[in-house]
Amino acid sequence: MTYNATNAPAGSVRQGEAIDETLRLIASDKVEGTNVYNLEGEHVGSVHNFMVDKVTGKVSYAVMSFGGFLGIGERYHPLPWDTLKYDTGYGGYVVNVSREQLEGGPHYARDDEPWTDPQYGRRIHGHYGLPYGV
Amino acid sequence: MTYNATNAPAGSVRQGEAIDETLRLIASDKVEGTNVYNLEGEHVGSVHNFMVDKVTGKVSYAVMSFGGFLGIGERYHPLPWDTLKYDTGYGGYVVNVSREQLEGGPHYARDDEPWTDPQYGRRIHGHYGLPYGV
Repeated sequence: MTYNATNAPAGSVRQGEAIDETLRLIASDKVEGTNVYNLEGEHVGSVHNFMVDKVTGKVSYAVMSFGGFLGIGERYHPLPWDTLKYDTGYGGYVVNVSREQLEGGPHYARDDEPWTDPQYGRRIHGHYGLPYGV
Repeated sequence: MTYNATNAPAGSVRQGEAIDETLRLIASDKVEGTNVYNLEGEHVGSVHNFMVDKVTGKVSYAVMSFGGFLGIGERYHPLPWDTLKYDTGYGGYVVNVSREQLEGGPHYARDDEPWTDPQYGRRIHGHYGLPYGV
């Protein structure tokens, strides 16, 4: 089973493979901190953490971080999990989302509580042109 | 929607609620480190990390840790995710599993690579008397 993006450039950085990243399973703390690239191969950020639906047990959103310094001014940009594809060549995730689309998308600061808004998920999906369902 | 175990004892420790633990979603880094109790209210360990299925996007296993000191001698005990119920009274997960069943279950040390074994998941489910499916 492969998770290659179709356009992984030659010479892309390969990060260390996790010991428990084999087969279909990946450890949660390996997802956190993993780099994210767009289809042009630009590094657009990294995974800060991700949101799990307690009822279905499914990962709903990857929360990317970029900008900021030592956590100050850092912004968190949630992306629907389905937009991320793991790419073994990059050693990271690839998203079919432009940097502009990301920067203009829903985001929050460290002390914000966006997930208390029941419309937040719908807004995220809408921004990335995806249907919002259960 | 509630995640109460039926037998949460009065006076159980309530941990700080996460800002993004509201509604159905919980942040991955909040799951890690969360305490785990059995039905008798005994603290049986904490969540070290958890395994996500890259294909389905579902959380498959919570990996509990107990024993050890500063990570030395620590053992990791994977449990099927469905065995964990979040309990707001405890501020942690409750599992219907005895301490003996846990200690006798599949486990690994820090440098082990159990997930490379395609039968490992089946073994975990078997130990806890659960059907192993996709």
